[in-house]
Amino acid sequence: MATHALSSGPKSDQTSYFLPLLPWGRRDGEVDTPVFMPVGTAGTVKAMTPEGVAATGAQIVLGNTYHLMLRPGAGRIAALGGLHRFMNWPHAILTDSGGFQVMSLAARRTIAETGVTFRSHLDGSLHELTPERSIAIQHLLGGDVTMALDECTPYPAPPEAVETSMELSMRWAERSRCAFIERPGHGVFGIVQGGVHPDLRLRSAARLVEIGFDGYAVGGLAIGEGQATTFAVLDATVPALPEDRPRYLMGVGKPADLVGAVMRGIDMFDCVLPTRSGRTAQAFTRGGTVNLRNARHADDPAPLDPECPCPACSSYSRAYLHHLSRAGEILASMLLTAHNLRYYADLMAAMRAAIERGSLAVLAAGFEAHNDPDPTRAPLTPTGIA
Amino acid sequence: MATHALSSGPKSDQTSYFLPLLPWGRRDGEVDTPVFMPVGTAGTVKAMTPEGVAATGAQIVLGNTYHLMLRPGAGRIAALGGLHRFMNWPHAILTDSGGFQVMSLAARRTIAETGVTFRSHLDGSLHELTPERSIAIQHLLGGDVTMALDECTPYPAPPEAVETSMELSMRWAERSRCAFIERPGHGVFGIVQGGVHPDLRLRSAARLVEIGFDGYAVGGLAIGEGQATTFAVLDATVPALPEDRPRYLMGVGKPADLVGAVMRGIDMFDCVLPTRSGRTAQAFTRGGTVNLRNARHADDPAPLDPECPCPACSSYSRAYLHHLSRAGEILASMLLTAHNLRYYADLMAAMRAAIERGSLAVLAAGFEAHNDPDPTRAPLTPTGIA
Repeated sequence: MATHALSSGPKSDQTSYFLPLLPWGRRDGEVDTPVFMPVGTAGTVKAMTPEGVAATGAQIVLGNTYHLMLRPGAGRIAALGGLHRFMNWPHAILTDSGGFQVMSLAARRTIAETGVTFRSHLDGSLHELTPERSIAIQHLLGGDVTMALDECTPYPAPPEAVETSMELSMRWAERSRCAFIERPGHGVFGIVQGGVHPDLRLRSAARLVEIGFDGYAVGGLAIGEGQATTFAVLDATVPALPEDRPRYLMGVGKPADLVGAVMRGIDMFDCVLPTRSGRTAQAFTRGGTVNLRNARHADDPAPLDPECPCPACSSYSRAYLHHLSRAGEILASMLLTAHNLRYYADLMAAMRAAIERGSLAVLAAGFEAHNDPDPTRAPLTPTGIA
Repeated sequence: MATHALSSGPKSDQTSYFLPLLPWGRRDGEVDTPVFMPVGTAGTVKAMTPEGVAATGAQIVLGNTYHLMLRPGAGRIAALGGLHRFMNWPHAILTDSGGFQVMSLAARRTIAETGVTFRSHLDGSLHELTPERSIAIQHLLGGDVTMALDECTPYPAPPEAVETSMELSMRWAERSRCAFIERPGHGVFGIVQGGVHPDLRLRSAARLVEIGFDGYAVGGLAIGEGQATTFAVLDATVPALPEDRPRYLMGVGKPADLVGAVMRGIDMFDCVLPTRSGRTAQAFTRGGTVNLRNARHADDPAPLDPECPCPACSSYSRAYLHHLSRAGEILASMLLTAHNLRYYADLMAAMRAAIERGSLAVLAAGFEAHNDPDPTRAPLTPTGIA
């Protein structure tokens, strides 16, 4: 695998992003791209030890600023040595800005030019999140990648509302960039908004590039617009982002979404799908998704996925995983989360290998043919590439 | 550590019990005694992988016949290769008879000479458990140690009721012994009943010895009678049990209970306390019990127990464990269960080493002086030993 400072997906042979030095002294900051980031919402990837997360092949996890600022508090985590040490994760961490969870979880939120005020979903306490405050909190957490604060525009929304929201996000992006304190091994990413409107997306991308970030995220997608529209927005947006900076599609997604997005030049992903599915007995396999609660698994001595080397597949039958799921046992969540993260990590590794060989389109075609045929799904391969 | 066929606690130098061959072919059946058996209720020690259980030092786990016969069913487990293979636990397993859970969990139970009929707490389905049926189910599960079916007499109860119940349990014990199919590496244990009445306990023990078992359990204790009474019953009962067979105190207990019972000649224990406590943020440590939900841990960078080598103590702060507990994270249950099982395994290992050195009474005195001074607790050392 080639080692480069930054990656730009299939149009480049660059497949790793270098974070030279983690804040508490371990030289362990290189991340191979394209990469999937398991979500470690509250300082833990749910139902996993950090050793277990690393064993799936994950190289970087996402920490949620909204959750951590409310509990246990960013100042407390800083006093305890930062998020890496707190959660015993010596590899890379990306922290989000908190904006998305404020919109989806917090109560009585008010958005103004300054920022957003809201009440905690835990105890009703009043908080304010401004671009400067989000960046400062992320600094306290000590993650390797900091995200600019943005407003995730709802979908659907009138074009004028999308434009107004995008423009606010761009002003917040500039304030976020200014508030970010440069230090070795740390970077800050801007987030493209603009809904499903190519012109707004392009204006947003141009503004972010003008400000200048270490990486560029595409936000406000996978919130109900459908895979074809997601891909269309990527087709319009990604070419406007610098090739020598990582591109991150936020909150995505299903395995087919990842393949289609990497085909379109995306380098980084995060999503709760593999972990949340692991806690509801949904498993991703090379043969499609499997619901282990289904009675047809009750007597099945076969492994979940015979090609998967994860603990769930190498040591247990589908019958046992079915039993654990039906009995509500914690071990079901532990084993199926580990399996799903392994599936995602292996899929990303397969895409990296295909990029190295120049055969990503072949992988995408094979994926389309063998996994979960879905007539409503958009073609994974963008027009003009395959 | 000496290797013997059976153990009899401090009055002997025998500290291991040999189970020569597990049913699915692994020569891994030796168990050092005195031993604590983590409870694997539904084919899993809750919140633990089997590798994690073994890493705590546990050598044998308990499987609950009541739970497994209802879900997923003993015939199904047998068809899948037995409980060892089903739950991926290559070490020893003791299965209980199902009687205790029928009394504590099942609905509309009716006890007759034949056995007990009851309705499942899961779906209301009707079941019958006779001595012969319990032994047959345990045979299907394929555990290494099978328990006779008994009636766990409630406490308190009139002496006549206790006597009637004990006599029924003795008739069931004989039927259980007859129903047990001898095979290499497998054994069957009888269970002494008789409430808090020394004369009934002695009559029960004599009857079981007359029948002849591979080991002897003391049942019907730790159900509200208090530690002093538990110890008094052991003082009266254990001397009546053969020295060359393991003695098992069922459902016990707190760390001090284990020390006091080993002082009285008990070799085997099982209890949900370390695992259940691990799921409610209660930790056992060399400095006493710790409630990690307590706010005083919120900023504490110190480990839970600096002398403990478990993952929870070697990689995390009390502050992090507090955070996980408050946030309801599965990882809290995983780490604290592992810690508590390690504490129990280490306590048993310390007692085995003390038995080897002939210094168990010194260990008990030190334990009494340093752990959780409790003025209401009974002396750990029985009269005439220390």
